Amino acid sequence: MRCLVPVAVDSPKSRLAPVLSPSERRAFSCAMAVDVLSTLRAADCQPTVLATAPIDDDRIASSLRVDVDDRPLSEAINARLVDGKPRLIVMADLPLIEPQDIRQLTDSDSDITIAPGLGGGTNALAVREPSFRVDYHGCSYRDHCRVADELAASVGAIDSRRLATDVDEPADLAEVLIHSDGTAASWLTTAGFELDTTDGRVGIVRR
Amino acid sequence: MRCLVPVAVDSPKSRLAPVLSPSERRAFSCAMAVDVLSTLRAADCQPTVLATAPIDDDRIASSLRVDVDDRPLSEAINARLVDGKPRLIVMADLPLIEPQDIRQLTDSDSDITIAPGLGGGTNALAVREPSFRVDYHGCSYRDHCRVADELAASVGAIDSRRLATDVDEPADLAEVLIHSDGTAASWLTTAGFELDTTDGRVGIVRR
Repeated sequence: MRCLVPVAVDSPKSRLAPVLSPSERRAFSCAMAVDVLSTLRAADCQPTVLATAPIDDDRIASSLRVDVDDRPLSEAINARLVDGKPRLIVMADLPLIEPQDIRQLTDSDSDITIAPGLGGGTNALAVREPSFRVDYHGCSYRDHCRVADELAASVGAIDSRRLATDVDEPADLAEVLIHSDGTAASWLTTAGFELDTTDGRVGIVRR
Repeated sequence: MRCLVPVAVDSPKSRLAPVLSPSERRAFSCAMAVDVLSTLRAADCQPTVLATAPIDDDRIASSLRVDVDDRPLSEAINARLVDGKPRLIVMADLPLIEPQDIRQLTDSDSDITIAPGLGGGTNALAVREPSFRVDYHGCSYRDHCRVADELAASVGAIDSRRLATDVDEPADLAEVLIHSDGTAASWLTTAGFELDTTDGRVGIVRR
């Protein structure tokens, strides 16, 4: 199945600004993308990176096809769905995912298979209905279910904590430190982040 | 498998104080417990409610065994693990869970099977190792894995968004409105809560 991984290059992860500088956010964002791309290849997908600008990270740019498209996310993806071929779309900020999570999407028989994110987003999506188009604005999980329904397309939902955990906010960094030992987790550790449980709840601290 | 569902009766869900009054928090907490108990029965479990004080909600008190134990959570549960019999422990604030999620725990062959919550907690736990004891303080997912390892007990982890979503904070209410039509979701709707996507992200608003 053809696979698209959208990557925002210039100002990624603005909600991590309280804990990471702009250049750190770019580096951490690339580290998460490296984890996602590695998982996709381990699941026998050959991803195309859909980047808002050229990527200067060799771990990504040297080994993968990178399509540069500076249009808004939904528009750039829909331009690639017009050929009607099945496609998997996986967000680049899911550093916890494992190959079996991707196989749940690629092996699904549904016309549209959605892995909802926390907060109602669509973290991964397998599209087998040629007329389906995406709209990532707002509560896209519900919107995508409704659009599929209007097309009389069958919908499957994947119940996965790993696929649901998109890393957007400082609290999400704890999930990476707890559950992963990949590139993004190593980046956080090298940058001095640790789990902090001093008040009985789990947070992060930077040494 | 014997099943325990701990319920904090007097001052539950303090982190929902910004959006719910104390009596509303008690009512919403009971509504979530009703969803959890109903799911457990649909999965052929006969839960015992482990309550910090007597429960005056007929949906719970009239049809189920309720053990009142005012000790701290871990202590009250460990007092029931000393008989060495296998036990399932499921938190009462998981209104999204479905019977197949519970069966993943009851069908597991591991000595200890954990469904981690967001933030490193232990939302559900199947204990088949007679010497295992719980400690819900801090990053209990990691701690429980470590304790199992020290006992040379096998560990399985369940990857489920529904089991991972414990409802603690106002933002978590959106998950209930998006993904459930159970008792807790109905309570929120009746109380005037709706999804709010006016700024492009998903939040909640109370009319």
